[in-house]
Amino acid sequence: MNGLGQMNGEAMTDNSINNIELFLASAHEMADLSASEILPFFRREISVLHKDGKGIFDPVTDADRKSEQVIRSFLAEKWPNHSIIGEEFGQDIKDDDHCWIIDPIDGTRAFVLGSPLWGTLIGLNIQDRPLIGMMNQPFTGERFWASPNGAFARWGGSDHVLKTRDCQNISEAVITTTCPDLFATDTDRVKFDELRTHCRMTRYGGDCYNYCLMAMGHVDLIVESGLATYDIAPLIPLIEGAGGVITTWSGDSAVNGGQIIAAGSQHLHEEALSLLNKSST
Amino acid sequence: MNGLGQMNGEAMTDNSINNIELFLASAHEMADLSASEILPFFRREISVLHKDGKGIFDPVTDADRKSEQVIRSFLAEKWPNHSIIGEEFGQDIKDDDHCWIIDPIDGTRAFVLGSPLWGTLIGLNIQDRPLIGMMNQPFTGERFWASPNGAFARWGGSDHVLKTRDCQNISEAVITTTCPDLFATDTDRVKFDELRTHCRMTRYGGDCYNYCLMAMGHVDLIVESGLATYDIAPLIPLIEGAGGVITTWSGDSAVNGGQIIAAGSQHLHEEALSLLNKSST
Repeated sequence: MNGLGQMNGEAMTDNSINNIELFLASAHEMADLSASEILPFFRREISVLHKDGKGIFDPVTDADRKSEQVIRSFLAEKWPNHSIIGEEFGQDIKDDDHCWIIDPIDGTRAFVLGSPLWGTLIGLNIQDRPLIGMMNQPFTGERFWASPNGAFARWGGSDHVLKTRDCQNISEAVITTTCPDLFATDTDRVKFDELRTHCRMTRYGGDCYNYCLMAMGHVDLIVESGLATYDIAPLIPLIEGAGGVITTWSGDSAVNGGQIIAAGSQHLHEEALSLLNKSST
Repeated sequence: MNGLGQMNGEAMTDNSINNIELFLASAHEMADLSASEILPFFRREISVLHKDGKGIFDPVTDADRKSEQVIRSFLAEKWPNHSIIGEEFGQDIKDDDHCWIIDPIDGTRAFVLGSPLWGTLIGLNIQDRPLIGMMNQPFTGERFWASPNGAFARWGGSDHVLKTRDCQNISEAVITTTCPDLFATDTDRVKFDELRTHCRMTRYGGDCYNYCLMAMGHVDLIVESGLATYDIAPLIPLIEGAGGVITTWSGDSAVNGGQIIAAGSQHLHEEALSLLNKSST
């Protein structure tokens, strides 16, 4: 886990440490601002563009763009020296130490269907390590956030401490992935299908919401591939802060996306990773 | 559509017609009562039983049972001569004309995962025809209901009239099913997989929530199999009242469950049904 103590030992500036709570407060402000931009579009007739023009339908809406714009405007004023990587408007690299990672609507397919299983992702990497992460779901009034000071959520007017479940055996595990069609390759999909035969239950759908369900202790394994950094970096502090483990399928840092495996416990992560890499394909 | 006028011409008693609004008011009361029983269990550590002891994991929780019990107690007092069919406590047949159909938590798998995509289904069949239907999702504060007087929803403090989308071409359609593992047979799953190749986007997950998204105009096709009457009867008035069509794969009434196809328009229903029955398998 990327605890604050550990960061201290690795030349993180005192300034950054002192600023963690300020950065987190900024994330809360940006979540509020983006919610105001997004909600007027939810469940309205909306203009939907097909993003890449080929392959699986990948929609983008005015809500995505307006949400990212308001977040970028906030950062330009509040933290003008920080870098930004956002899904809709690309990279704006200014500073080596601080980089905000923004996915204005993670789960745009769910959004255009009227389902509430989407969220606004706001993360901050400091020295390339994801230290602050937030998922905001304004329709249901749910917010999940984490920093080196812990992982928390708010829903139904109450705050909650996030803690993953310590699932002792993969045969008891609930495994999820957003959609079998979204694996980057057929081989990846087959590996997932083999892994899930060891689990008690598979559920599809969810996007970022699945990672929040894991941080709450309700989902044990998430296996996906083809993710971008903005799909995953803001979720890493939530999983790690709640006691889980998240890496690539080769056990490296998940911060740049790609093939991702998240587990509620170290033990389950090792067991699932071993099975995933033992697959026949 | 089972309009009230049509019912008039088919020997429906005047009493039943006059009582439609009373029955609907009862459904709202039962939705409120069941919500109070269910919510204390949501996202808590809950006792989960595996219902049938074999095959795909089919959980049932105390929340399911307490929800159905409070609904049955209400009906015993308010409409003692009406029949009841409920998922957890079976059939109680007393009266040929009125039968309440109850699924206390449709989407128990979603429920035990902490996802909000579950709902309490409350329907009333009069002379075996589903005339009143309701889906209540108390965590998000959403309720969907329909009677011969129309199909409506409430969320975010506002009421909405439900209307399906008139999707003109299957190539533009969004198709959903709860889970590819839940088809009753491999043949059914293959037929679904062939049908979805004609569509723009496939989404998994959702249970009853998918039918509400269709009634809102966001989902165009739903194809499932192996459904029980309590999974589907309370949703029929919502689809039909919002302008959609719902039948079995052979075009018969969906009231008893089985293989179900729902479409946002007559045209799309015909096109999809034709493709489903033309499949190579």
